[in-house]
Order: sequence, then C-alpha cells, then structure tokens
Amino acid sequence: MEPVDLTVDTLHASVDDPALNSMNFLNEVAQHYPDAVSLAAGRPYEEFFDSGVLPAYLDRFRRHLADDLGLSPAQVDRTLLQYGRTKGIVHHLISRNLAVDEGLTVDPETIVVTVGCQEAMFLVLRALRAGPADVLFAVAPTYVGLTGAARLVDLPVRPVRGGPDGIDLADLRAQLHRARAEGLRPRGCYVMPDFANPSGVSMDVAQRRRLLDLAAEEELLLIEDNPYGLFPAGDGDRPPTLKALDTRRRVVYLGSFAKTVLPGARVGYVVADQRVAGSDGTVGPLADQLAKIKSMVTVNTSPIAQAVIGGALLAHDCSLAAANVRERAAYARNLRHLTDGLARRFPPGGPVGWNVPAGGFFVVVTVPFPVDDALLHRSARRYGVLWTPMGHFYDDGAAVRALRLSISAVTPDRIDLGLDRLAALITDELAAVGPVRR
Amino acid sequence: MEPVDLTVDTLHASVDDPALNSMNFLNEVAQHYPDAVSLAAGRPYEEFFDSGVLPAYLDRFRRHLADDLGLSPAQVDRTLLQYGRTKGIVHHLISRNLAVDEGLTVDPETIVVTVGCQEAMFLVLRALRAGPADVLFAVAPTYVGLTGAARLVDLPVRPVRGGPDGIDLADLRAQLHRARAEGLRPRGCYVMPDFANPSGVSMDVAQRRRLLDLAAEEELLLIEDNPYGLFPAGDGDRPPTLKALDTRRRVVYLGSFAKTVLPGARVGYVVADQRVAGSDGTVGPLADQLAKIKSMVTVNTSPIAQAVIGGALLAHDCSLAAANVRERAAYARNLRHLTDGLARRFPPGGPVGWNVPAGGFFVVVTVPFPVDDALLHRSARRYGVLWTPMGHFYDDGAAVRALRLSISAVTPDRIDLGLDRLAALITDELAAVGPVRR
Repeated sequence: MEPVDLTVDTLHASVDDPALNSMNFLNEVAQHYPDAVSLAAGRPYEEFFDSGVLPAYLDRFRRHLADDLGLSPAQVDRTLLQYGRTKGIVHHLISRNLAVDEGLTVDPETIVVTVGCQEAMFLVLRALRAGPADVLFAVAPTYVGLTGAARLVDLPVRPVRGGPDGIDLADLRAQLHRARAEGLRPRGCYVMPDFANPSGVSMDVAQRRRLLDLAAEEELLLIEDNPYGLFPAGDGDRPPTLKALDTRRRVVYLGSFAKTVLPGARVGYVVADQRVAGSDGTVGPLADQLAKIKSMVTVNTSPIAQAVIGGALLAHDCSLAAANVRERAAYARNLRHLTDGLARRFPPGGPVGWNVPAGGFFVVVTVPFPVDDALLHRSARRYGVLWTPMGHFYDDGAAVRALRLSISAVTPDRIDLGLDRLAALITDELAAVGPVRR
Repeated sequence: MEPVDLTVDTLHASVDDPALNSMNFLNEVAQHYPDAVSLAAGRPYEEFFDSGVLPAYLDRFRRHLADDLGLSPAQVDRTLLQYGRTKGIVHHLISRNLAVDEGLTVDPETIVVTVGCQEAMFLVLRALRAGPADVLFAVAPTYVGLTGAARLVDLPVRPVRGGPDGIDLADLRAQLHRARAEGLRPRGCYVMPDFANPSGVSMDVAQRRRLLDLAAEEELLLIEDNPYGLFPAGDGDRPPTLKALDTRRRVVYLGSFAKTVLPGARVGYVVADQRVAGSDGTVGPLADQLAKIKSMVTVNTSPIAQAVIGGALLAHDCSLAAANVRERAAYARNLRHLTDGLARRFPPGGPVGWNVPAGGFFVVVTVPFPVDDALLHRSARRYGVLWTPMGHFYDDGAAVRALRLSISAVTPDRIDLGLDRLAALITDELAAVGPVRR
C-alpha cells in the first residue's frame, strides 16, 4: 500500500472538478501521443518565435523608462527588479494600444496588469462572488478557464444559449429573471464577442448594441474577453469591441498578450472602470478593488515580464495589429485551409457539418455520434490525430456530438494530414453507427 | 455627486478587510512622505541592483536548456515563449538549490513554481479550505500576506502565541483542542521559524523538533515560510529548516527568490510532498493538486521570469548562500547598526525595549504608549521617519504598544538619521504620557 497523508475529498472541491481536470486530461492525451497531429492545441503559432528578441524588448523598455519617462538609472533598475506598483507598470502603454488598435479611450488608472488573462478572470470573479446567492452567466459553450476560475471561488456558472448570433438575448433575459425569482443575484455575464473559444462565432455590431442595451436595462455587468479579436480572416473592418461601444460602464474588458505578443510573458490585463463607492465614502474604479485582491494573489505582475511586453508594444508604436501582420496572415491562411479541407473531405448534405468562422483559431465540427474522451483516445491511438471534445466546454459533463478543431499551432501540411486522419476516424464511426438522417 | 456603479458591500468581503488594506495604507503613507526615512519597507537592498544582468541570466538559462538538457533551438524558444508546464521549468534547479543550501532532498515533482511566494500561500490555503468548519492557525504576530490570502478563501486564521521560542507549543495544542471541541477542522499552522516577519524571532533546533512531534501527534500540517533564512547576522551554522527535519511529510515548505535573487521576477515556490489519494484511487503529491488550482489562477509562472531565476541559480552553482555573500554582510551590518543605535539612544532599564534578532530584516521596538496609524502619520509628517505599527500584524485591529523597524532597504547613514527621528518622536510621546513604570 502506498502511504497516504490526505484524501482529495478533504481539499477544496475545485481540485476534483471536471473544469480543473479538463486541461490536464487534454494535455496528458497530447503527451501520450506525441506523434499525433494536434488540431487540439489553441497555442499561438511558433514559426515566428525567437527568444533572442527578449533582450531587445527589455532594452527598449528600459530606454523608454529613461528617455520618455525621465527615470534615473537607479530608478530604472528599481522599476524592473524591485517590488512595484500592484496595478502594473505598462498600463499607459496598454491604454495607448487600446486607443491605436481598438479606438478605445481608457484611463490607465482603470487598468490592472495581470499574470495572464487568467488572473484577470480570477480577480474579477473573486471580487464579484460575495455570497452564496451570487451567480454568473456565460455563453455556452464556455472557455474552460472561465469555468475553472469560477469554481475556485464557488461561483455557479449558468449557461446562456449562444447560437449563430453569439448570444441568445431572449435566453439571457429569461435566465436573469429566473435566477432573480429564485433569490439569486446575477453578478455578470461572460462573453467572447470575437471569434469565440470554442465556438468560433462572433457577434455583429447590432447584436453588440442590443446586448449592451439589455445589460443596462437589467443592470448586468458584461465580462468581455477578447484574446482573438486581432485575427480576422478577412480584409474588412473589425467590429468595435463591446467596451468601445460601452457608454454606461457596463463592460469589464479582459485583455491578453498571449496571442498577440507571446504566452511566456504571462501578461494580460483587465479594464475595470466601474465606479465603486467604498465603505468610507470614497469612490474609485473597480480596478482598485481588483488590485487589492491581486496584492494577496501575486502581489504584482513581474515587471520583467511586463517590460518584455512593454518593449514589444513600443517596438510597434503600440499597435499589435501592425505587430501581427505575419501572424494574422498565417492564421487566416490556416483557417481557410481547414474549412476548405473539410469541404473537400465531407460532401455537402452529408452527416458532417462545420461552421466557417470569420477569424480566430477555432472551428466546430458536428457529427451524428457522441464525441467523448474515449473517442479522443481512440482517435489519438489508432488514427494519430488530436482534437477537443466539445463536451469539455459544457458544464454538465454530457457528451456532445461535436468537436473543436484549432488552426493556430499547425502548418497547412499538418492540417491536411490531420484532416485525412480525422476523415478516416469519422468514416469508421459513421459505418459503426449505420445510416444517419441529418 | 460622483456617479457610482457598485458599492463595496456588494463585493467579496476581503476587499474591505483590514488585512487587504494594510499594505495599501502603508504604501500610501510612504508615497505621501517621500522624503521620510523609511524603516518600514521590507524590500531587499538596492545597492547591488543592476538590470543589465537580466540578458546574461536569460542567456545562461537558454544555454542550460540547450547544453545540459539537450533541447533544440526551437525547443528552447518554445520553452521560454510558449505556454508551458504548470508546475514550472526551474523545479530541478530549485531542488538542487535546496540540496546545496539546506541539505534538503526534494523530488522536483513535488515542487510548484509560483508567481512569488504569495501565490504559493494562496494555492495552499485555497486547497486546504474546503468548507466552513476549516480553520488555520498562525503564529502571531503574523505576516499580513498570509492573513490576506486566507481572507480571499474565507479561511479564518486563529493566532497562536509566539513568544521568545518562536511558537508557544502549549498554546498551539490548547487551541487545536479547543477548535476541535467547537467542531472546527484545523487545516494547518503557518510558521516562519527563521527571523520571522515581523517579530524577528527564530526557533532553535530543539523547538523545531518539538513542533514537528506535536504536528505528527495532532495530525497537523505545518506551513513553513522561509524568506529570510539565508540572512543570519552571525557566523554560526544556520539551523536546519523544519522541512529538513521533517521525516513524516508534515511540512509544506514555501520558498521565495524575492530576497535572494530579485523581487521583480515574481518567482517563488512550494514544496508539497504530502501524498494525496484522488477520488479515482490514484495517489500523487499535493503539488499536483496545487498545480490544478494554479492552472486556473495564473496558468503557469512566466517561463521568462523563471529563466531569470534559473540563470541566477546556475551562475552560482545553485547556491544562493554563495550568491548572497555581499547582501548577507550588508543586512548583518545594518541589523547590528540598528540595535547598537537603539542601545545608544535608549538607556537600559528605560521604558523603550527591543529584541536583538539573530538575523533577517526586522526588529520590534516596544514602547509604553499605543502605536497606531495616527501615530505613524504624525511620525511621517512631523519627524520624517516611517516604520510599521505592529497592530497591522494582529488580526483584531487593536493598537499594539510596539512598532516594527526594517533594516533591509536602508544604509547605515539612513538608519542613524531614522533612529534620531524616531528617538525624537518617542521622547515627545513619553513626555506626553507622563512618567511610566515598566
């Protein structure tokens, strides 16, 4: 018998929750089958990675501190190496970036620079979950990082129908009323209006305005997550973010540099300009309350990591759209390659369907049989291709007849190989389930 | 009237808690009086800071990945820039460091590299707080970061008497029994056996062994925090850490590189080798459960920040004792300078007392009048010296007749100036309160 000191049931329930074990499971499958083609990973493209740029970015930010902000050499060293401002040291550059790329005017004091967007989510949910009557809404299927963060603070997440418009507003309103009738307090609704993970669906501008109107009427906070907005596949204008349309401070905006600069810096941020009245009568931005929580989670985001991001921003005049011309083209090419490849392999009118997102990293394929973890294992072992069962993005644990394909970390050649293998799997599964009516 | 969107009482109670506002308050006082001598800040000494070393550390770690671990250039880039292992990428170097400096044998798989030691605390407390009957113990006075992290997970912290031995074991045992009699479940006891913050007190080896025996008898987890252990003021051997004496896996060990390398990397770690039985019957280290939580808080610690720490470790053959010869001498000099300076300014047998710690950053001065935030403001404004009211380290909010002085971020000249000003304040306060019997 192996010695045991603790049993998992004596620990916080989150550690045994599917939401926290989902990523682990998917990573383990990927590790067990290293030769499989991965259409599962949502990691950014690596072809342009070069860790040799890090000293240049650091140096660029050091020069900014000295030349633009007038810091002495000792102050520069202190800024990079010492404990520092809880809300961060690249907030002014983030504010500039949001102005340049999103036409968004943001007071830098309403920004908290976080350890990746994940910490931003955690801080917001920790602040909003004050008691057992609190409940969060999220468009389903939902990014598992949101569900996981909610688990850590014991905040229930109720799914809102997504659908082709990105969010079913009638369902959201009905759910809000139902929750209130149950004595619950809706604290917010999590949305990803641009090329959502995992659905790939976007909201058009009219839908964004309707959602904002509903949020104002229902006094609902919207938590807008925007990791993929800079990667449209087409050439048209990008629609404004919810935050850019938000004249009533109903939107908390979550930002990430993982896809637009690099994941390894672990730098994200939250814009929280909501005015909060303190118990002492003072009024300040929600960002200041989030910063208090952050001071007890990570103290502050590594200024070295922030300097890398700051240097990258400065190197491109704070435009990440400009910085990501190559990456955007690669993602657009891959997305087209994948959906074209699906069309070549699965005849129209057949039992296999998929959406054609306007950008981002993800495509959802629907099939007429349940897609579960056992099928993923079989796909990896026998067919050599990885993808993500859509069931991982629903909270009820049921198998869903759909799978998510990711185009971000692969080349067109690998997409072809992966689709050939996926087609073989699907063909065999279809044969096993027999004739299917759509 | 300023517009208000939310009131603080609708947010999680932690944001309005003294523990989370304490650091903010102290930072604000420091910012309001930038010319005051700060004997408050526990930040590391800055004289040896040089942000120019960062590229060298990064390069040292990149060469380690390539030369020692055999990674290809693409794998090196991926390791530094891409999403990565939740438990970290410098765990093997931390394990080596603990062997070299602490004579501690640690399986690298039981280490989680965290965003500073603060995240390590948060992860441990989040895992341990499973329900409303859970309670934590901590030697009082207590580091406010521990109390704050406990607030975030609604975990009550009960104070255990510290005293000259570092912890009053009879009080700990009585408190455990009392809590259990109340139907509560003690989840652990937080201790800082080496040069504690804020008390400066250390436990001797015999006391450490007694504490470990008590923990085994009472099935209590000890959470050992050791940020200052490498900074003894004398020349004798350092006592072994609790973890080095722990043969029964009763100790979760928290480590920090903030004082031994640099705070700006925001890299710490936790050693959690407790064997946890999962609901599926598998047994693994507590570290794996903490990693699941971490995946929903910060995903992983920035590999760039880890590379800086890894490079610094490699540059000194993984010995931080060797890396900190200059720093240790500076802290020892400052500590002696401060206690000698107190002795020169306050006559023996008088109303002012202080301890003479064997190392670390902090000295506690006791006075015969209440020391509160108002006195700190007056001290800053009229006398130009900052320190920390000891009341901030007790959870009941009462004013304590003691203040904490820190020697870490000042020079001997500034210590002299600060003590002159502190002596003036104390003299005036003593005159105001009239004759005092000790």
